[in-house]
Amino acid sequence: MDLAHRIETALETAMGRAAADPAPPKLKKALYHAVFPGGARVRPSLCLAVAGACGDDAPALSDAAAAAIELIHCASLVHDDLPCFDDADIRRGQPTVHRLYGEPLAVLVGDGLIVAAFETLAAAAGVKPLRLPELVAIVGRAVGSPYGLVAGQAWESERVADLSAYQQAKTGSLFVAATMAGAVAAGADPGPWRAMGEKLGEAYQVADDIRDAAADPAEIGKPVGCDALHDRPNAVARLGLAGALARLTGLLGEAADAVPPCRGEAMLRGLVMAQGQRLVPKGMVAAE
Amino acid sequence: MDLAHRIETALETAMGRAAADPAPPKLKKALYHAVFPGGARVRPSLCLAVAGACGDDAPALSDAAAAAIELIHCASLVHDDLPCFDDADIRRGQPTVHRLYGEPLAVLVGDGLIVAAFETLAAAAGVKPLRLPELVAIVGRAVGSPYGLVAGQAWESERVADLSAYQQAKTGSLFVAATMAGAVAAGADPGPWRAMGEKLGEAYQVADDIRDAAADPAEIGKPVGCDALHDRPNAVARLGLAGALARLTGLLGEAADAVPPCRGEAMLRGLVMAQGQRLVPKGMVAAE
Repeated sequence: MDLAHRIETALETAMGRAAADPAPPKLKKALYHAVFPGGARVRPSLCLAVAGACGDDAPALSDAAAAAIELIHCASLVHDDLPCFDDADIRRGQPTVHRLYGEPLAVLVGDGLIVAAFETLAAAAGVKPLRLPELVAIVGRAVGSPYGLVAGQAWESERVADLSAYQQAKTGSLFVAATMAGAVAAGADPGPWRAMGEKLGEAYQVADDIRDAAADPAEIGKPVGCDALHDRPNAVARLGLAGALARLTGLLGEAADAVPPCRGEAMLRGLVMAQGQRLVPKGMVAAE
Repeated sequence: MDLAHRIETALETAMGRAAADPAPPKLKKALYHAVFPGGARVRPSLCLAVAGACGDDAPALSDAAAAAIELIHCASLVHDDLPCFDDADIRRGQPTVHRLYGEPLAVLVGDGLIVAAFETLAAAAGVKPLRLPELVAIVGRAVGSPYGLVAGQAWESERVADLSAYQQAKTGSLFVAATMAGAVAAGADPGPWRAMGEKLGEAYQVADDIRDAAADPAEIGKPVGCDALHDRPNAVARLGLAGALARLTGLLGEAADAVPPCRGEAMLRGLVMAQGQRLVPKGMVAAE
């Protein structure tokens, strides 16, 4: 089964459980709206790719880890779009959850997806239960405080932000979780996989800054120019567009170099470089 | 160590981890404000009492289960108090989290506490890792959809609510989790502990309805009369005040009768009846 199919199937299983009876009808619809159709599913693809490179000896657990990470990502989008944060109308080309279903359900969908992520891990732990403590710890660290998405978003409520902690928590954390959880799900030591996740997270942040500054909103399915509007720190403001493109290429190379010795090492290096090109908006070419 | 001390220590450990550096300063304060000082800590006390009655052979895991359940409870209070739900100014006699720290941090504190609950379970799983999958499943079921707090709160967004599903999810679920998680943490089969949690959850809901209708707001540290104001289903509207008090007493008796055979059976029955009297507002006596 290809990775994309495994991811969608795992997400369908998780959402089938969360949106089963007796869940309230609007909550069911809002949960599905938050997860399907997805974006590029970058993080769960990375998670499964790493699990595959490590042997993928418990595919159901790898699938659960990938789904958990995507559910956390979807939860963060729903909460970040709320009126008290970005007040966004559009996400992935569709109305945001709170625009369609109201603010109460958007808060609850975010909460419910976070919970569903941990339930998904626990439900798949049957075959290799001793891997669960570390998987829960890795996913928890990526979403909670002090290192995860919650902490990253909370830096936006501070007058002066710790820029490195902010960016690592806001974007880097889920990429690190993706590589490390992929390794743990396949029975490998997660430590050596941290650096690859960090570099990819940073690359993705730079790519996001480039898209926000220069992409066509119709292509990426959400408004652009938000960083400049909110005066948020970003790589384009700091390095210029060409500088940011060069930085992106550099980071992708560093991510490929950071792949630890493993069965699928060459495959994974190639994947990083190929996927990296997809991060650049159409019509642009990352500097060589 | 007495139960109250164990609970506060476990909560301090969990919050010490979540509010450690490099967490943003306001988030740290807001996290502590949501958890300390606590209310009656009814749910974690119940969890530890059940663990004790089952032998409590892994006290650190019992403490973690109790703390996880209280963290989920605190998270639900912070989110329920948000402007888009109850828009509450006061909780436990103090300003609510969003009044003190703003709505963005209140959303993030709720998210962070949910995550901290699962991290707390995972961090304590070292001694008995095979108990973790069931603990995560029990806590997840209590907070998520379709059976937990998220689903319960979401019923308030429906024109017509499934009243039984609403009340079981909104109040009953965490009591069921408290008894069942207490049992699992101590290595016991959780199934027989469900009924006791259900009865106590229903008793607590009735007691809450009584307090909302008849208590002094200064005594309970939050506004009263909210059910009538929002036209929410409640036991006092359905049964009258005397009828609700009689129902409360009946439910406490049923909860005591539902204690399964275990080492601490008699102790636990006595505790249920004694604690039950504390649920009644001062100046009232539950009907015999």
